[in-house]
Amino acid sequence: MADGKKKVEAITSMEEDFAQWYTDVVLKADLTGYTSVKGFMVLKPAGFAIWENIRNELDKRFKATGVQNVYLPCMIPESLLDMEKDHVEGFAPEVAWVTKGGLSDLPEKMCVRPTSETLFCDFYKRDIESYRDLPKVYNQWCSVVRWEKETRPFLRTREFLWQEGHTAHATAEDAEKRTKQMLNVYADFMEDFLAIPVIKGQKTEKEKFAGAVATYTVESLMHDGKALQAGTSHNFGDGFAKAFGVQFTDKNNKLQYVHQTSWGVTTRLIGALIMVHGDDNGLKLPPRVAPTQVTIIPIQQKKDGVLDKANELCDRLVNAGLRARLDDSDKSPGFKFAECEMRGVPARVEIGPRDIENNQCVVVRRDTGEKVQVNLDELEDYMTKLMDEIQTNMFETAKALRDKQTHTATTWDEFKDIAANKPGFIKAMWCGDRACEEEIKAETSCSTRCMPFEQEELACTCVHCGKPAKKMVYFGKAY
Amino acid sequence: MADGKKKVEAITSMEEDFAQWYTDVVLKADLTGYTSVKGFMVLKPAGFAIWENIRNELDKRFKATGVQNVYLPCMIPESLLDMEKDHVEGFAPEVAWVTKGGLSDLPEKMCVRPTSETLFCDFYKRDIESYRDLPKVYNQWCSVVRWEKETRPFLRTREFLWQEGHTAHATAEDAEKRTKQMLNVYADFMEDFLAIPVIKGQKTEKEKFAGAVATYTVESLMHDGKALQAGTSHNFGDGFAKAFGVQFTDKNNKLQYVHQTSWGVTTRLIGALIMVHGDDNGLKLPPRVAPTQVTIIPIQQKKDGVLDKANELCDRLVNAGLRARLDDSDKSPGFKFAECEMRGVPARVEIGPRDIENNQCVVVRRDTGEKVQVNLDELEDYMTKLMDEIQTNMFETAKALRDKQTHTATTWDEFKDIAANKPGFIKAMWCGDRACEEEIKAETSCSTRCMPFEQEELACTCVHCGKPAKKMVYFGKAY
Repeated sequence: MADGKKKVEAITSMEEDFAQWYTDVVLKADLTGYTSVKGFMVLKPAGFAIWENIRNELDKRFKATGVQNVYLPCMIPESLLDMEKDHVEGFAPEVAWVTKGGLSDLPEKMCVRPTSETLFCDFYKRDIESYRDLPKVYNQWCSVVRWEKETRPFLRTREFLWQEGHTAHATAEDAEKRTKQMLNVYADFMEDFLAIPVIKGQKTEKEKFAGAVATYTVESLMHDGKALQAGTSHNFGDGFAKAFGVQFTDKNNKLQYVHQTSWGVTTRLIGALIMVHGDDNGLKLPPRVAPTQVTIIPIQQKKDGVLDKANELCDRLVNAGLRARLDDSDKSPGFKFAECEMRGVPARVEIGPRDIENNQCVVVRRDTGEKVQVNLDELEDYMTKLMDEIQTNMFETAKALRDKQTHTATTWDEFKDIAANKPGFIKAMWCGDRACEEEIKAETSCSTRCMPFEQEELACTCVHCGKPAKKMVYFGKAY
Repeated sequence: MADGKKKVEAITSMEEDFAQWYTDVVLKADLTGYTSVKGFMVLKPAGFAIWENIRNELDKRFKATGVQNVYLPCMIPESLLDMEKDHVEGFAPEVAWVTKGGLSDLPEKMCVRPTSETLFCDFYKRDIESYRDLPKVYNQWCSVVRWEKETRPFLRTREFLWQEGHTAHATAEDAEKRTKQMLNVYADFMEDFLAIPVIKGQKTEKEKFAGAVATYTVESLMHDGKALQAGTSHNFGDGFAKAFGVQFTDKNNKLQYVHQTSWGVTTRLIGALIMVHGDDNGLKLPPRVAPTQVTIIPIQQKKDGVLDKANELCDRLVNAGLRARLDDSDKSPGFKFAECEMRGVPARVEIGPRDIENNQCVVVRRDTGEKVQVNLDELEDYMTKLMDEIQTNMFETAKALRDKQTHTATTWDEFKDIAANKPGFIKAMWCGDRACEEEIKAETSCSTRCMPFEQEELACTCVHCGKPAKKMVYFGKAY
């Protein structure tokens, strides 16, 4: 196992330097790579396959709620971006501008889309006439560009992949309902499929999206106790509709403005998967999202019958509906074990001459490291059940850690102490005042993550200013 | 059926003005729409759903040959684009340039990718070290931008969706094999799935891709007799590898250059579907690619039991694996019939009170217009078989028309006469000389479409110059 060991030792440990551990995992699990285009990354096969699974599963869940996919232009003329005041202020400083097309200067510069609210408004304005045309529940899967100064793989890059849903409704109630519905789709998906526990709540005025009336969010906690916003859903009311003139004729033949929403998740979910589940041996993928769920590793594979048996087991698992792969490369078993762990494959099956004699194999779980001998006759059943078991265990483990790293503060001294010494969420009461929120951040680096839907009354007064409390809030240091 | 008629009458007839007919279908079948971004289109739900079906099916076929998906940056720094001489000459005049990021001018301008050969070379240079790393058989689904002056929906737009496969191999033979393999994947897909008959062949030196050693193509013929290049596959030899320094250590520990290929198809396939199969009632989709295969239209839907029965039939067809949809909107049946035809749904099922009494329904085929009464007990079986029948019939019909519009010329007078009077392909012998090819185009507007793999010896001499013939060529006027 010498070479395998070496490969593992090349990773920095989490405890020692979490940021370096993260970068090591991202690169050594072969998820992504740097390019000659500064601030842009490559999604390699192992990384893109995770995104494909996320996309396919979410897309299915979207469509079950009536979402239809579309594709809008990748560029926005400056005059279109300028139409909604808050929105342009939020995005104009961080876009990439196209100023030449072919050999000529453009009459008007265009930005590569950082998000597509303005394009959807332009589209809906042409496409919506009557109440019969509503609701429009559209989504697109695409890439967006934001000119970030500091970048980190998956978490903050100048280009990233995402989906952006944009809907238009006849009433404020319908828009609010859709905003919350999509937040629930995200939350269920993240917990069921990614095994990432999330807190659902509303962003404060300060933290909400540029141009939104209300922003809802699902917040997750990374292994190092930092918070990560995993997805957001925005209710725009009729603000964009008024700015762009998106109107429809209602049943009484009166012109009304539509009410709009938007909601999105990005490839940063891959960063969340790494930082919620990973360990010092590398990536650890929940079975449902793992591109490879089981790797079969032959032992003494040159011996007669070993490769044949390994192939047979792999075929059997594939036929049972598992994403199984045989590693018959000429690397040593020890190297293969380590590589399999590094890449986060939920389980491996070891099969050698002695195992074959005994009609058994060795199954090793990635989540617990547990090794079990399994009778070959029962392999499909065993592995199928094991996948569910690992999925559940990974969620429970992540939830237990999240809960352990969720602290409650009722006094300002307590808050400061936790912020300085205990990584994680801090639950505390807040007066609802933006200035107070900003002071808390300035003093502790903790921002408001959300006002959770599940409120608790921890105290009657704001943890910072002592005025009457309006909301319980999750605070945290964020990615 | 008055309102239905009106909707149909709003389309220009094919005979009268093919170009206007095409635009009418594209817009009235609700596939795409114009935007405020000049030269860019929206893919609406009906259009995008066709692309999704194309993507999912092709992606499955790619993966069956070992292709892995990746995602590379959407921008190319000028210095990277400049590295391969023929390539930059081919693309630089038609790219969009990003010159500002955020509030500052970029130190080096970048183009929005028009194609990604240069990015893949940059990537492979970092990622390939030894013969063990080969082959790399990667693909990405993305959008590209080319600054076209004149645009037409699906056929030529400033942005379009496509896939681009890029591979790297240890030997010239492996690269050539992969180039041809992917061309065959395209040809089979187009014939089986899109019901579009294609000619497989090689492009001449004049028509090949900028930077390629050889370009293979699948050529199709539209209803108006114009040719459309439906997909291409390029063998680059080691030209790009030498320009970018993409090398590997072979088994004898010697440095070698890789051999590369690329291959792609685009949303222009949707244009081909329209122009190969459509008619004066609108779009006509082959069942395999049709987002909706069957629409159930209730007659007198307010009468007791009609909507229930229509719903039941729809559920039964969905359970039988068909993409069925119920149209229970408050439009008239006549309008629904016309809309269904316009949108190209392969078959509709009409069900009214009298049908229910007789335990039957009326099935109307989109391809032939044929109406049949079908016993409700046999509906699933009947419709499932009908889908295959329509698929086959549409391919045979398209092939018969293509063959009818394929002419043979053995003398120059004959060639000129066909070019002037008979739309379609012209098969003729050619000397292989580029100047001769250019003269033919100048005199007749017919370009070489391809040198088909299936050669015939129509004559011994070139149809134009009379010198000894080297190849039989398909000529045609092209989109």
